[in-house]
Amino acid sequence: MVFGNRGDDSGTGVAFTRDPANGDKVAYGDYLPNAQGEDVVAGIRNTLLLAELERLDPTSYLGLREVMDTLEGHYRDMCDIEFTIEKGKLWILQTRIGKRTAFAEWVMAHDMLDEGLIDEDTALLRVDANRLEELFKRRVKADAAEPIAKGLNASPGAASGEVVFTADDAEARAKEGARVLLVRRETTPDDYHGMIASQGILTSAGGTNSHAAVVARGEGIPAVCGADAIKIDLASRSFSANGATVKEGEVVTIDGFTGNVFVGELPLQDSVLEKARSGDEGAREERIWKAFERLMAHADTRRRLRVRANADTPDQSTNARERGAEGIGLCRTEHMFLGEERVESVRQMIFAETTEQEQAAYDVLLPLQREDFVGIFRAMSGLPVTVRLLDPPLHEFLPNQVELAVEVALGQERGEDVSEQRRVLQKVNELHETNPMLGLRGVRLGIVKPGLYAMQVRAICEAAARVKREGGDPKVEIMIPLVATKPELEQVLAELEPVAAQVLESEGVELEHLEWGTMIELPRAAVTAGEIAEVSEFFSFGTNDLTQTAFGFSRDDIGKFVGLYEERRLVPANPFVTVDLPGVGRLMRIAVEQGKASNPDLHLGICGEHGGDPASVVFCHELGLDYVSCSPFRVETARLAAGQAAVGSSESASK
Amino acid sequence: MVFGNRGDDSGTGVAFTRDPANGDKVAYGDYLPNAQGEDVVAGIRNTLLLAELERLDPTSYLGLREVMDTLEGHYRDMCDIEFTIEKGKLWILQTRIGKRTAFAEWVMAHDMLDEGLIDEDTALLRVDANRLEELFKRRVKADAAEPIAKGLNASPGAASGEVVFTADDAEARAKEGARVLLVRRETTPDDYHGMIASQGILTSAGGTNSHAAVVARGEGIPAVCGADAIKIDLASRSFSANGATVKEGEVVTIDGFTGNVFVGELPLQDSVLEKARSGDEGAREERIWKAFERLMAHADTRRRLRVRANADTPDQSTNARERGAEGIGLCRTEHMFLGEERVESVRQMIFAETTEQEQAAYDVLLPLQREDFVGIFRAMSGLPVTVRLLDPPLHEFLPNQVELAVEVALGQERGEDVSEQRRVLQKVNELHETNPMLGLRGVRLGIVKPGLYAMQVRAICEAAARVKREGGDPKVEIMIPLVATKPELEQVLAELEPVAAQVLESEGVELEHLEWGTMIELPRAAVTAGEIAEVSEFFSFGTNDLTQTAFGFSRDDIGKFVGLYEERRLVPANPFVTVDLPGVGRLMRIAVEQGKASNPDLHLGICGEHGGDPASVVFCHELGLDYVSCSPFRVETARLAAGQAAVGSSESASK
Repeated sequence: MVFGNRGDDSGTGVAFTRDPANGDKVAYGDYLPNAQGEDVVAGIRNTLLLAELERLDPTSYLGLREVMDTLEGHYRDMCDIEFTIEKGKLWILQTRIGKRTAFAEWVMAHDMLDEGLIDEDTALLRVDANRLEELFKRRVKADAAEPIAKGLNASPGAASGEVVFTADDAEARAKEGARVLLVRRETTPDDYHGMIASQGILTSAGGTNSHAAVVARGEGIPAVCGADAIKIDLASRSFSANGATVKEGEVVTIDGFTGNVFVGELPLQDSVLEKARSGDEGAREERIWKAFERLMAHADTRRRLRVRANADTPDQSTNARERGAEGIGLCRTEHMFLGEERVESVRQMIFAETTEQEQAAYDVLLPLQREDFVGIFRAMSGLPVTVRLLDPPLHEFLPNQVELAVEVALGQERGEDVSEQRRVLQKVNELHETNPMLGLRGVRLGIVKPGLYAMQVRAICEAAARVKREGGDPKVEIMIPLVATKPELEQVLAELEPVAAQVLESEGVELEHLEWGTMIELPRAAVTAGEIAEVSEFFSFGTNDLTQTAFGFSRDDIGKFVGLYEERRLVPANPFVTVDLPGVGRLMRIAVEQGKASNPDLHLGICGEHGGDPASVVFCHELGLDYVSCSPFRVETARLAAGQAAVGSSESASK
Repeated sequence: MVFGNRGDDSGTGVAFTRDPANGDKVAYGDYLPNAQGEDVVAGIRNTLLLAELERLDPTSYLGLREVMDTLEGHYRDMCDIEFTIEKGKLWILQTRIGKRTAFAEWVMAHDMLDEGLIDEDTALLRVDANRLEELFKRRVKADAAEPIAKGLNASPGAASGEVVFTADDAEARAKEGARVLLVRRETTPDDYHGMIASQGILTSAGGTNSHAAVVARGEGIPAVCGADAIKIDLASRSFSANGATVKEGEVVTIDGFTGNVFVGELPLQDSVLEKARSGDEGAREERIWKAFERLMAHADTRRRLRVRANADTPDQSTNARERGAEGIGLCRTEHMFLGEERVESVRQMIFAETTEQEQAAYDVLLPLQREDFVGIFRAMSGLPVTVRLLDPPLHEFLPNQVELAVEVALGQERGEDVSEQRRVLQKVNELHETNPMLGLRGVRLGIVKPGLYAMQVRAICEAAARVKREGGDPKVEIMIPLVATKPELEQVLAELEPVAAQVLESEGVELEHLEWGTMIELPRAAVTAGEIAEVSEFFSFGTNDLTQTAFGFSRDDIGKFVGLYEERRLVPANPFVTVDLPGVGRLMRIAVEQGKASNPDLHLGICGEHGGDPASVVFCHELGLDYVSCSPFRVETARLAAGQAAVGSSESASK
C-alpha cells in the first residue's frame, strides 16, 4: 500500500493499493490510526485505479511512477510510499517496506523472482511462515452479503454456525452434532472447552491480543473480536447489531480475514491452495499456487531439517503425508486404549490382581492395537514412524472421582445396590494422584506394569511384520516417554528388545529400520542426556512437558494467571507456543551437546507443539536437530520455516 | 571388637569387646552371620575381661596385646582382630578397622585425640555425621525387662505407646492425644499418615531397607522391623509373640537400637547429650559429652558453611538456636493462615469479590501474623531470619472437594438447606487444580492477589520495628517462592519494597539488615539464574521442589512406584534425601555460577530437606554456598558435616 496523507494528523488521505490480483488502485478516505496504532485509511470514500490518476493528474502520476521505480528498485521489494499532492505538486513524505496480505506476499515474491529482481533465497525469505496457514483457510465471497457488524480480524478463516452464548452450551450442542459459533463479550480460560468445540468465535470486546484472539489463532479457529456494535442480551438469549437481532440457534457467518459479521450461512470460498492440492486443475493454474509450489520446492531444497508429523491414526498419517510430512515423529497410543470395545479390557488391566487377569486383558487389546498399527505403517510405508508407548496416568481411563463418589453416596442413601460402583470408586481413589502429571505415568507405567509395554511392542512388531510381508516398508522407532534416568530406559529396553526380536523371528521377518529411543521432556533427562544417550538411538524433545516442568507450569492450571502474566510480560512470549530460549532452550542445548558427545550417531528431533512454530523451527535448525515433528496442518509451515532457517543461517554465516 | 573364631563356619567363637565405658571384655558364644551378613557373636554364652584371659592363658594374652599394639599403632584406629587360640597357640586370622556404635565412635576418636595418636582434623573425620542423631535418642535401660520378641534395629531410639494396627487408627488416636505405636506386618506408602502420628513402628516382616525402616529413619521415629516372632491377628485385634498376647490399646515399648520389643511402658534412659545440653551437671562430666563438645567445637572452627534452621514458630526458633543454628533459613508462613481464629478471614480473602472484602480479611490477619513474627524475631535476635511469603495453593485452606460434593449431594437429596455448602463447593471447584504443585501458588499468588504479599510484608516489618524498639536486633530477609522468570521477581519487589519502606518510615525505625531474595526451586530459575540474580540479594535453593520438577516426581504420588524404583536402582539413592548430583546438582551448579557472575554479592543458601543430609552438606560446601538450612533436629548434624567437608576438601587439596 502506498499511503498519501497531508503530513498532519487532521483527516483525509489517499492510499495506493498495489493489488496483484485486481490491478493497482488508489484509495482515499479518512486517515486514522487503527487499534494497533498503525496508520490505516479507515472509512474509504472512494478508490481509483492508478491509471485514473494518470488521467486526472498526469504530471503527478509520472513523478510518482518514477519515485516508485527508484524506491522499489533500491529495496527490491514493494514499498509503502506516503505521498500527497497539494496544489498540483507531488510530495513524497516517507517510505517503508510495504505491508501486505499473506496472499500478496507470496504472489509478489514469486513475481519479483520471475522478473529476476530477486533470487530464490531472497524470495523465500520474503514470505512469512507464521501466516502460511491463512492461505489454507476458507473466505467469505466478496460482496456476498452486507455485514451487520465489523470487528477486528483476530484469527483468519471464515466460519458459519448456530449462535451460542456460553462455553457449556457450545460444548453440549457440538456434542449433539451441531456446528456452533460462540458469541461472547469476551472469553476467559474457563471458556476454553467451549471455544475448541466451536466453528468460530465472535466477541464484542477485546483486541487482537485478547484471550479469544490468542486461543483462536493457536487452535486455528476463525475469530472476529471487538465487534463493538454487537450488544449481547443474555436475558433474551440474543444479540443485536445495527438494527438486526440474532437469536440463539440462528446461524451467523464471520470472516476472520476482514472482521465482517453476517447473518445466515454465506457461501464460502475455498482456499485455492486446498483446491489445487486436491487436484483441481483450475486452481493449479492460479498464481498463488505457482508461487506456493515454487517457493516450497525451494524451501525443501534448502532445508536441512526433516519435517515429520504428529499423527495417531491412518487418516491423520495420510493427511500428513499429502502435506509433505517425511514420517511420523510422534504417534501417541493413548487413543488405542479408549473406545467402547476396549474400555472393559483396559479397566480389567487396571483392576487386575493377578498376572493372569492382566494378561487376559492384554490378549483382548493386542489384536485390536495391531490393526491400528497396520493402518499407520501402511500409510507411512517407506517413512519412519515413531511410536510412543503409553504415557498418561491410568486414572484417565477411569470415571471422574467426584462424580463417582456422589453417585455412590446417593445410591447408598436411596438404598440402591452400588457395590460395583463402590468397587470402581475404591480403585479410582487408590489411583487418585495429587499431581498426576508428576505421578505414575510414562516409563513408570512401563516399569510398574511390565506386561503393558510388552503388549504394545508385540502389537507394533506384529503389525510391522504384516506390512512388510504385504510388500510395504515399515520403518519403526519405538519411543519411551518420561525418562528421568539412564537405568529406567536401560531396564525397560532390556525387557522390550527381546520381545521385538522374538516376534520378528517367529514372523520370519527382518526390519531394516527398528530403533529404540526416548523423549527428553524432563529437566533431569536434559542435564543427564550424556548418560541416557549411551542406551538410546534417538532423542525426541517433548517440549510441552519440558516447558511445564522447567517453569513449574501445569498447562491445565495456568489459565488462572496466564492472562495476567502475558499482559504484564512476566513470561517471554507464550512459552507453550514458542520455545523459551533462555530456559527450555538452554536445557535443550545442554541435552544436544551431551547426547551427541556420548553418542555421535544419536538422532535428534522435537515432537512438542513447538515443532510447528516458525521461530522454534529456526531454533531447532540452529541446534542441529535432524527433524521437527508437528501437527499435520502445520507441516507446510514447518517445511517453509526450515527452509528459511537454512537460508537465513547461511546468509548470516556468509556475512 | 576383636572376634575370635576357629577359622571355620561351624560354631562357637570368642569376641573381644573394647568397651570404653565398662572396660575391655572378651565375650564368647555362638558364631553366626546376622541378617546383614555381618559376622557377629550371637547368643553370647559368657564374657570375660581381657584381664581374665591374662589369668587363664598369660602367654596368649601377651601375644595378643603385642599384636593389638602393632596393628592399632599402624592404623591409628581401633581394629577388629580375629584370632583363635588352639592348643595354647595364638593365631591371628585377619584384621580390619573396627565397627563400633555411634557412641563408641565419638568416645574413641576423642580418646585417641587425647592420647595424641591423631590430630583434631583426623578425629573429626572419624565420626559419622549420619549417625549423630542416634546420640540424642532415648534408650531402654539395660536389663529393664525381658523382651517378648527381637527384630532388626531399623531406626534408633526407644518408644512406648498404645498398640494400634492401622494407619487410620494411629492418626485418629493420636489426634485424640494418645501416644500410639503402630504394629503391622509391613507398611506401604498409604500408611504414611499413620506412621508420622506414631511414637514408634513395629513390623513383623521386612528388613532394614523396608518401607517402614526407611520412613522411620527419615522421620526420626524409632522402629523395630522384621520381628518375625510377632503374629498379628487382626480379627481379635491383638498380636502374640513367644506366648505373650498384646491387645489393641495395651502399651508396648520398642528399642530401635537393639531391636527388642517389651510389654508395658519401660523406663527409658535419656540421652546423655540431651541431658548435658539441658544443663545436667552429671551428664556434662560424661566422656561422650566431652567428646561431643570438643569435636563439635572443632567442626565449628573448621567449617566455612553457616548452619541455619527451618523454623516456623518461636519455640522452633529457640530450639534451633540452642542446637547452634545461626539463623533461620526458611520460616514458612503457611501455618499463619491456619487455625480456628484465622480460617474465616482466609476464606473471606479467597472468596472476596471486591478489593474491600479482600482488604477487610487482611485487616483481621495482619495483627495476628505480626505477633507471630514478633515472637520469631525475638527468639532469633541478632541472627538472620528468612521469611518465605505464602507458597501453597489456596485450595489447601478450603475443604476437600470430594467430601464437600458428597455432602452437598446428600443434603440436597434429603431436602436440607445446603446453599452455604454449595457456595463453598463452587469456589472449591473453581480453585480446583489438576496439578496444584504446578498451578496458582508461590509468587503467582503474590501477583494475582497483590494485597496478600503486601499484608505479609507489612506484618513482618511492623514486627521487626517493634522488636528493634524493644532493644532487639531483627535481621530480616524476605523470600519470594517459586520464581521462574526475572520479571516476576522484579515486579513483585517493585510492589513490596515501598510497603516495607513506608512501614519502617512511619514506625521511625531503620533496619540494618533487610534483604530481598528468592528461592531457586524451578529448573528454569536455575538455568536463568544470571538474570534473576540481577534483582535478587540472595538465592535459597528449594531442593525439594527442584527435585520434584527436575525428575517430574510428585512426592505425594511417587509412593506407587518409588519402592520398586529403589529396589531396582532406577534412581541414584533417594533424591529427596541426598541431592541428586548429576541432575539437580548440575542445575544448582549452573545457578551458582551464573548467579555469582552477574551479582558477585549474591548470598547463597539451601533450605530444602537436603540441608540436613551430610552428603548434601558436603556438596553445598564444594558448591560454595554460604549456608545450609535444615530442620532444628538436624542442626548439629549439619554443623558436623560442614566441618568435615571443610577438613576433607582441605585434605584433598593438599594432596
